Amino acid sequence: MTNPTPSDLAFVPFVSVENMMKLVHHIGVEEMLKGIAGYIEADFLRWESFDKTPRVASHSAEGVIELMPTSDGEIYGFKYVNGHPKNMKDGLQTVTAFGLLASVDTGYPVMLSEMTVLTALRTAATSALVARVLAPENARTMAMIGNGAQSEFQALAMKTLAGITTLKMYDIDSKATAKAMKNLKGHGFTLVPCKTPEEAIEGADIITTCTADKQYATILSDNMVGAGVHINAIGGDCPGKTELHKDILSRSDVFVEYPPQTRIEGEIQQMDEDFAVTEFWEVLTGKAKGRTSQNQITLFDGVGFAIEDFSALRYVRDQLNDTGLYQDLDMVADPDDPRDLFGMLMRARP
Amino acid sequence: MTNPTPSDLAFVPFVSVENMMKLVHHIGVEEMLKGIAGYIEADFLRWESFDKTPRVASHSAEGVIELMPTSDGEIYGFKYVNGHPKNMKDGLQTVTAFGLLASVDTGYPVMLSEMTVLTALRTAATSALVARVLAPENARTMAMIGNGAQSEFQALAMKTLAGITTLKMYDIDSKATAKAMKNLKGHGFTLVPCKTPEEAIEGADIITTCTADKQYATILSDNMVGAGVHINAIGGDCPGKTELHKDILSRSDVFVEYPPQTRIEGEIQQMDEDFAVTEFWEVLTGKAKGRTSQNQITLFDGVGFAIEDFSALRYVRDQLNDTGLYQDLDMVADPDDPRDLFGMLMRARP
Repeated sequence: MTNPTPSDLAFVPFVSVENMMKLVHHIGVEEMLKGIAGYIEADFLRWESFDKTPRVASHSAEGVIELMPTSDGEIYGFKYVNGHPKNMKDGLQTVTAFGLLASVDTGYPVMLSEMTVLTALRTAATSALVARVLAPENARTMAMIGNGAQSEFQALAMKTLAGITTLKMYDIDSKATAKAMKNLKGHGFTLVPCKTPEEAIEGADIITTCTADKQYATILSDNMVGAGVHINAIGGDCPGKTELHKDILSRSDVFVEYPPQTRIEGEIQQMDEDFAVTEFWEVLTGKAKGRTSQNQITLFDGVGFAIEDFSALRYVRDQLNDTGLYQDLDMVADPDDPRDLFGMLMRARP
Repeated sequence: MTNPTPSDLAFVPFVSVENMMKLVHHIGVEEMLKGIAGYIEADFLRWESFDKTPRVASHSAEGVIELMPTSDGEIYGFKYVNGHPKNMKDGLQTVTAFGLLASVDTGYPVMLSEMTVLTALRTAATSALVARVLAPENARTMAMIGNGAQSEFQALAMKTLAGITTLKMYDIDSKATAKAMKNLKGHGFTLVPCKTPEEAIEGADIITTCTADKQYATILSDNMVGAGVHINAIGGDCPGKTELHKDILSRSDVFVEYPPQTRIEGEIQQMDEDFAVTEFWEVLTGKAKGRTSQNQITLFDGVGFAIEDFSALRYVRDQLNDTGLYQDLDMVADPDDPRDLFGMLMRARP
């Protein structure tokens, strides 16, 4: 009689929110941002070895639910993520997420993880990786437009990876600015609350826009943006949701993750289909140029791509053995005789 | 100071393999097959209210990993499922799966569930629902070609929903037949092991083919299939994997789930793009005809569609409150202030 208890293969390591937070503190948030950025960079450098597809989106009046799969031929990964801007007023997260890695060879899941916290980390790590390469030399000051759930992560990643030390903070809701300033106190920044976006942008080397309204917004208009800055535009990330006036795009050199997805979701949805963009991974490999002059405006039209989640999940997976910060989830039936699923079921009869 | 403990909203009910098996025994396997078939029928009757897309497949030399999303505008669901025929020789399941339901309104997950066992149940429930409508009147005998992990579920669903009492069992590996016969003993069938597919088909009202090789196989050739039968062809379910000779398709009236997916994955991948098929849901609503004569061969080219998984998950979800057969999974971060994800993280510092 076969034992109805699941075999080891039936167990999938699961990283809960609690364990993810413990992992962040075990490693240190800045160290973890650096670590994830390193994994993203490594995966961007082998960009061509990945299966890529624009995310699979299910839109509704209230928001969007998306699946973001990718594979490097050995490991398959996907993320489930929603985007519901109106959630906030109901006391819910705008974005929640979880993700999975699986073995391409067997199709068996190898890790399930919360990704609400992890997405915040990987989004910030990606932005800072891009800024490290594209921002003007000796960038020290960042304007942070939008002081919501992503803002502190952006700030810390920009500090640890791109040298930012002064933050000029603006949000349409001053309570959000107060919240972010309180959270960032003691993290080594000079924090400057600002009453207008114009004030925040004054003197900034990097301008990060990270707002959440599902609408065509103009957080930045053309006359607000001076020469030489790097714009990190990450709040526009679905059809009908943008943050920048299109004239800024025309004046900038625009860098993107995966053009087929960014043309649907990013700031460049406002532009013609043939609007010129550079794929950021090509800058990393040296195939394309990054910043070429002091006066150039570089603009990262970041929407978040599946490979970044894959990298972040890979990073977390590589920490599991050392930390033990996971639990085993009985998620995959694995009968001793693979053809005897029914027998396994019957033997489990109480 | 906000409590770093996750709020109730952060918990997602999770149905493990163990709890799914307990649920099956609590309800009874035949009763559960009937229940799931009822949910599938209800959802097929409102087919037009669903977002539909062919599954998102990631193919490799060894198999395929797929995501199958759908939504009825209130509930979103998706399944992760792999298909790795070569797994069996390594002692692994050919198919493993899990699935999720989420609220369209908020994007928050509302249930995560194992779906290896559940997929077996819903596949059988779908086949039997179709057979109940399309099989010849008073069908009693079924040929079961392929006696692997799905075969017992097919048999029980065909018994409880379509009146099958005699099973003629054939598998290229007689050990598989012996396994299925042993499992089905005591379930009210007349069980007839057969040495050839021809012997199994002799006198059968329904012919079920459910084999797993990833190749163009010819489990049934044209001269083997007599007039008037119903063929339930469910083993061909990805590009390059078929079971029937194409001449059988030409002689049959072919019924499918979702044509854009079936033309890629089903038996009809062997036919021209304009090969006529009937969508089964239209037979249920009366929009299209089912069986119209005694001599007609009806053929269900079943590949498994996302709505069936959605229905099965809905069914399971509706049992959770009464049975308590789930555990709470800390999968979604839900800070008290949705903009204060970072604060939640910092307050969780040990």
